[in-house]
Amino acid sequence: MTEKWVYDFEEGNENMRDLLGGKGAGLAEMTGIGLPVPPGFTITTEACKEYLKTNQISDEIRNETLEHLRKLEEKTNKKLGDINNPLLVSVRSGAPISMPGMMDTILNLGLNDETVEGLSRLTQNERFAYDSYRRFIQMFSNVVMEIPHDKFEYILEKYKEGNNLKNDTELTALMLKNVIYDYKQLYKEHTGRDFSQDPLEQLFIAIEAVFKSWNTPRAITYRMLNKISEELGTAVNIVMMVFGNMGNDSATGVAFTRNPSTGEKKLYGEYLINAQGEDVVSGIRTPKQIQEMQFDLPLVYEQLVQVAQTLEKHYTDLQDMEFTIEKNKLYMLQTRRGKRTAQATVKAAVDMVEEGLISKEEAVLRVTPEQVDQLLHKMIDPTVKVQPIAKGLPASPGAASGKVVFNVKEAAERGKSGESIILMRPETTPEDLEGMAYSQGILTTRGGMTAHAAVVARGMGKPCIVGAEEIKLNLVEKTFVVNGVTVKENDIITIDGSMGIVIVGEVPMIEPTLTPELKEVLAFADEFKELGVRANANTPEEAIRAKEYGATGIGLCRTERMFLQKDRLPIMQEMIISESREERVKFLENLEKMQKKDFYDILKAMDGYPVIIRLLDPPLHEFLPQRERLEKELEDLKARSESQEVISKKERQLVRSKELSEFNPMIGFRGCRVGLVYPEIYEMQSAAIIEAAIDLKREGFNPIPKIMLPLIGHVNEMRVLREKVQKVVEETINRENVKVSYQIGTMIEVPRAALTADQIAQYADFFSYGTNDLTQTTFAYSRDDAEVTFLPFYLKEKILLEEPFMTIDRDGVGKLVRIGVVLGRKTNKSLEIGICGEHGGDPESIEFFHYAGLDYVSCSPFRVPIARLSAAQVAIREKSA
Amino acid sequence: MTEKWVYDFEEGNENMRDLLGGKGAGLAEMTGIGLPVPPGFTITTEACKEYLKTNQISDEIRNETLEHLRKLEEKTNKKLGDINNPLLVSVRSGAPISMPGMMDTILNLGLNDETVEGLSRLTQNERFAYDSYRRFIQMFSNVVMEIPHDKFEYILEKYKEGNNLKNDTELTALMLKNVIYDYKQLYKEHTGRDFSQDPLEQLFIAIEAVFKSWNTPRAITYRMLNKISEELGTAVNIVMMVFGNMGNDSATGVAFTRNPSTGEKKLYGEYLINAQGEDVVSGIRTPKQIQEMQFDLPLVYEQLVQVAQTLEKHYTDLQDMEFTIEKNKLYMLQTRRGKRTAQATVKAAVDMVEEGLISKEEAVLRVTPEQVDQLLHKMIDPTVKVQPIAKGLPASPGAASGKVVFNVKEAAERGKSGESIILMRPETTPEDLEGMAYSQGILTTRGGMTAHAAVVARGMGKPCIVGAEEIKLNLVEKTFVVNGVTVKENDIITIDGSMGIVIVGEVPMIEPTLTPELKEVLAFADEFKELGVRANANTPEEAIRAKEYGATGIGLCRTERMFLQKDRLPIMQEMIISESREERVKFLENLEKMQKKDFYDILKAMDGYPVIIRLLDPPLHEFLPQRERLEKELEDLKARSESQEVISKKERQLVRSKELSEFNPMIGFRGCRVGLVYPEIYEMQSAAIIEAAIDLKREGFNPIPKIMLPLIGHVNEMRVLREKVQKVVEETINRENVKVSYQIGTMIEVPRAALTADQIAQYADFFSYGTNDLTQTTFAYSRDDAEVTFLPFYLKEKILLEEPFMTIDRDGVGKLVRIGVVLGRKTNKSLEIGICGEHGGDPESIEFFHYAGLDYVSCSPFRVPIARLSAAQVAIREKSA
Repeated sequence: MTEKWVYDFEEGNENMRDLLGGKGAGLAEMTGIGLPVPPGFTITTEACKEYLKTNQISDEIRNETLEHLRKLEEKTNKKLGDINNPLLVSVRSGAPISMPGMMDTILNLGLNDETVEGLSRLTQNERFAYDSYRRFIQMFSNVVMEIPHDKFEYILEKYKEGNNLKNDTELTALMLKNVIYDYKQLYKEHTGRDFSQDPLEQLFIAIEAVFKSWNTPRAITYRMLNKISEELGTAVNIVMMVFGNMGNDSATGVAFTRNPSTGEKKLYGEYLINAQGEDVVSGIRTPKQIQEMQFDLPLVYEQLVQVAQTLEKHYTDLQDMEFTIEKNKLYMLQTRRGKRTAQATVKAAVDMVEEGLISKEEAVLRVTPEQVDQLLHKMIDPTVKVQPIAKGLPASPGAASGKVVFNVKEAAERGKSGESIILMRPETTPEDLEGMAYSQGILTTRGGMTAHAAVVARGMGKPCIVGAEEIKLNLVEKTFVVNGVTVKENDIITIDGSMGIVIVGEVPMIEPTLTPELKEVLAFADEFKELGVRANANTPEEAIRAKEYGATGIGLCRTERMFLQKDRLPIMQEMIISESREERVKFLENLEKMQKKDFYDILKAMDGYPVIIRLLDPPLHEFLPQRERLEKELEDLKARSESQEVISKKERQLVRSKELSEFNPMIGFRGCRVGLVYPEIYEMQSAAIIEAAIDLKREGFNPIPKIMLPLIGHVNEMRVLREKVQKVVEETINRENVKVSYQIGTMIEVPRAALTADQIAQYADFFSYGTNDLTQTTFAYSRDDAEVTFLPFYLKEKILLEEPFMTIDRDGVGKLVRIGVVLGRKTNKSLEIGICGEHGGDPESIEFFHYAGLDYVSCSPFRVPIARLSAAQVAIREKSA
Repeated sequence: MTEKWVYDFEEGNENMRDLLGGKGAGLAEMTGIGLPVPPGFTITTEACKEYLKTNQISDEIRNETLEHLRKLEEKTNKKLGDINNPLLVSVRSGAPISMPGMMDTILNLGLNDETVEGLSRLTQNERFAYDSYRRFIQMFSNVVMEIPHDKFEYILEKYKEGNNLKNDTELTALMLKNVIYDYKQLYKEHTGRDFSQDPLEQLFIAIEAVFKSWNTPRAITYRMLNKISEELGTAVNIVMMVFGNMGNDSATGVAFTRNPSTGEKKLYGEYLINAQGEDVVSGIRTPKQIQEMQFDLPLVYEQLVQVAQTLEKHYTDLQDMEFTIEKNKLYMLQTRRGKRTAQATVKAAVDMVEEGLISKEEAVLRVTPEQVDQLLHKMIDPTVKVQPIAKGLPASPGAASGKVVFNVKEAAERGKSGESIILMRPETTPEDLEGMAYSQGILTTRGGMTAHAAVVARGMGKPCIVGAEEIKLNLVEKTFVVNGVTVKENDIITIDGSMGIVIVGEVPMIEPTLTPELKEVLAFADEFKELGVRANANTPEEAIRAKEYGATGIGLCRTERMFLQKDRLPIMQEMIISESREERVKFLENLEKMQKKDFYDILKAMDGYPVIIRLLDPPLHEFLPQRERLEKELEDLKARSESQEVISKKERQLVRSKELSEFNPMIGFRGCRVGLVYPEIYEMQSAAIIEAAIDLKREGFNPIPKIMLPLIGHVNEMRVLREKVQKVVEETINRENVKVSYQIGTMIEVPRAALTADQIAQYADFFSYGTNDLTQTTFAYSRDDAEVTFLPFYLKEKILLEEPFMTIDRDGVGKLVRIGVVLGRKTNKSLEIGICGEHGGDPESIEFFHYAGLDYVSCSPFRVPIARLSAAQVAIREKSA
């Protein structure tokens, strides 16, 4: 089999990107659909790979290139190296995937001391010819021979200074000849050889240089970071030169078919009259807005608009084009998918659906989850330059400014009274919730991406940076120091939780927008997605926000936060230190009324949608003050000679705190284990839930409560607790004589639950994967510890390729999820299965959950739009596969 | 279908135990093989079930019983109730499984005021007749009517006292008539009715009473505790009375075909001349040793020896027989499998193989793992009555006496100097190892069966009781108080770790014996077992013991204990607080020499057998003193104005201890995670292992080291560490130019490892299931916490049916084991798979591991014999199934 190594533009098309590279395929496609492209040909990526294997251009490739060169000469009626009618070409690299770091472009190849004269005669423009030659030598030397750019600029500057000139354009032909002389000298000093006067030699050296540039360190790093295969290789495009610098009827420019910043449907771009491509980029002259071309070159402008429309129609996407106008003739030099902002992506996608250009499916696929995320958070105005003083982990996206406060209580109070506060702590604990809720943003020096602060902040949709370890915190003096900067209490700082940077002072922000276009794209998404999207919401406010963002239910309502509120915590603590069931029941009855109100509000906010309420999960000692604090408080009480009653209550707390303290609380006495040993807690919660639902039902609402038992690992836990809960629920329903539909199900968050899902499903109406805990237990990673000890090392050293608490581990945790789905449905056909871990808002994980056959994902309200989009994308992709 | 409810002894056989009960089947079988059994019949267990359903004896059963009674009358030529020639019978219960708590025996049924006269005439023995009647009334009243035994004894005593008599046998016929008169009065007072004079009525009341006794509370409790089905029911045996109390040519007794205490092959038992069965049991007269019968009744003795031989041959097992001799005629009244001590079981089994009575397989199946365990531990002499003062969990078997010491250091020092110490602590920590090692036994007030103290003690084979929560410990005053008893330091106590009891003072003990017979049974076992049996041993001493007990390798040699020794811990601590790799390497080099010596000794002890050495596993902070202690030490140092160097080292320890402290250390920074972040540790250990092996090889030994990486959860951990370890090993081998065969493998102890075993097996030569940690992670149970918080509750409430750290959880953890086996062997056909968790010594778990297809189990040296036996039993059972 003889391979074909070189393709004329007429021979290729868009589908040959792998072989011809992005640029080559674009030029071929444009040629094919009749757009004005200068003639040329492409040497394939296969030739590149061949070259990289053998380190030389084979005779076969060389001959085929020469053959196509001959055809190009015929087409253009010029000849490479012909003194009278020289063919000049550009040599441009083009990989299948756009990739910086590789050799880019050499223009005007084919010029030498003789052809420059021919060009001069042919164009009647000596200055143009020598300027072209000067540019060629400079580019070739720099790009191919790696002679520093500065050295050429230095020579050029010397001549300009010597002649008192300001602009390059003022250099005369003679001056340029001298410059060229010096350039050649410089070239020889560096390479030890004369600058090649053989255009064919120039050509093959350039081609080789492109091939070699595939393996520059920068290119390799880029490919590694962007997960681009090393195997692709780059193509080389040889194109007849056209000149935008042949006078005021010539120009060069770049344009987008739509505004890449806003998405507005209007040609957008810049151009320069009488210039070559590099001039636009170099910034020496200020380009004009593309619309001005209507006045400078009205006919060509009209043609460009037509070309843009043709290209958009053809590619059905926003295009980024390069063009050159040579003496009123338009040449298209490149077209590619235009990069654009999140906002533009969304607007263009929606508009194109309306224009009939693309389908809704296509529109959904065009928007990335990251773009949606970006649109939903306040961010630092990207046009403003900022000076970060510290960097931490970007734990919760968005930006916020406020006064630094180091004390949680103070943050809560001042936040409540309307001040903008940034809460700064070493780390946070469940006791800090109120302070966090009333702060604009949270900054901690310890912890990882799933530390308490991070998880809670994401749930609240608040900017948060964790693990900013460079910062030295002094809680006593209420200051922090980082990189020589000292920040005092009440100084204003700005944090950007998307980037993890801390800035002193206030910074201009861009407000998040749930634009009509975004709403529309998400509405499209809802038409295609198969996974339901619910939200994790613990308060009525969160539930309302979740619904606004399109959640069709609450997948996880944690109830422990209800115990932590100021008026309730003391009662909870009394309950915990109680010594008998009777005592506990007494205190629980007090809490029941309060919790009933919470459930009422949440169920009302989610009227008509399911609300999964998880019964108490954390270990009881989390509700008692820390031991050290208790010891101190007790000392104080004694010192103040407080009443014996007060002292002995405190003593009892201390004893109980010691009794309940654990070596490994994460895998200790919590969840349904507490629920089984102290059944009155779950009984109280179940009664409160059902009573709230009954009240709503009486008022004409349609509450759908689902009671979820946490940390089930054995069918007997499920069986016994289901019986207890159901008993309370049925008794309440019978007593009140109001029918309420409800379900009882469980979290699947320990490996054993997934492994014995067939047994557990006998007693469960639904499963909800708690993938946070399931990841901890499947890996045996205590996330609070792992993220400050070995996990950063693991990620850096690529022992783990993904942070498993962010993106589901398909091989391990995912396997358990699949096992649980198959086993669970085996015994319970109608089992509803969802996931309520943080992974529920992660696009890659959502893809997995789709394929694992889950019914829904549940995530923080702020990620609901992202989840809707991601769920639709995987469904569309599956169908089209 | 008409059911047959009653069987003559001639109609039944041994295989009908379910229907005829154990006693009935034995009598039928003996009848069948021609042994002298009094004629009789059995009413089936089905009849019992029928009775319990309807609460009455159906006509059908009644009629069939009467029919068989008639046949019995014909056979015996006597008639029930016949005044001249009365048939007397015994009525005896007999369930399919021997079971206390049910009605036992009524003798002499058929006597009334008239037939007693007939008997008197017939036997020419009025005293005998009335004594029999007296006994009958007493038994019937007590057993059937539940009139307290005391009341009858009181009457009897009254007559003896009134007549100045010492023994029952001195009562004359006249006196007995008076006694009978009073008995009848007593009967009427209690029942409101006259004592029945109708023998048939007597018979059916007795039968009903047997049936009813199936459901006495004691019987129900017994069945529940011993997992005996409620459905079995009991049979009733009606047997012609024979009388051992008809003079000096009559006797009654019990005998074993071999000595049930030692297993010696020699008839063993007791008899009483001129007595009825109850006299032997009641202890009023002292029975004679069976051998004396050769002189009393030589012919009958000869016959009994013959019968015993026949029965053993027939049943191929040691039999427990009841017999009665009536006027020189031997009657066999019962035969059943004889209960025996562990020692007797083993000896009898081995002897019977030699005698050709049973196969080796059968011998292996006869010995229970518990019996082997019993034989391997010192125990309190069971003949001695002890008074426990406290009870805890029986954490490690065996008994020990010694002086109570509350301080670990002191225990170590005094233990070393030869004192017998019982170490008493709230709980133990890894720092307490030395103190534990030099104590005779360990007693803690906290912790569960797998607490540190328990695990370590079992490993050391030392008696240990944990969780003795009633004990109030006062470490300051060095005393403990329990149930009103105060024990001071240096008081002697005895603990029995098999039963979990604490006794004040010293108690006589029985020494453990690895008898030749036990060795032989275990040698049989080795012929059949398919699982290899290795030992978990951390020291050369343990390795030697393991080999003695038959381990064919070390399945787990933990190396962390090597770091904890007195001379090494300070170096280890220096290493941990080092701030650079260079510093760490320096300290590690010191440790390497010491560890090399350890490895040398262990590999030498296990010459020719594989030794799996696990590289460092625990979190580093376990090697630093506890934080509180460091803080205190630091204060002291400062107060003493110690040198800055000493102080700053201590400060550094404190800082590092804080840095390394974790929320959940069990699932934190330990195992291969530490090995990856500080690769120099594993590199040092690997070098030490291979250097030790090389030295041994040079000396002509055959070391087989296998290096095991702990806590692997991801293939990349395995790949990277394997590379590093292998590099060190290969370099060492090449440098020393001595070939040593070695392997590199991993523990499978986190769920993810089992789930991705196919990936991990690419880089592992062997897997060893660490089922302790795998159970913790699969259940998400922190065992240290669970065993003091919810686990006891779970076991009590039957949420868990087995303690999962004792017996492998087949449905969950076991499923992961099976998954790991299948996946691991898929990619690595030659993968060796074993288990080194505590389950490796648990018979039920061993059964599972056999069926899961593992290659070996590894357990503490003391459980190696148990494991060998258990492995053989499951293999034999599988084959015969």
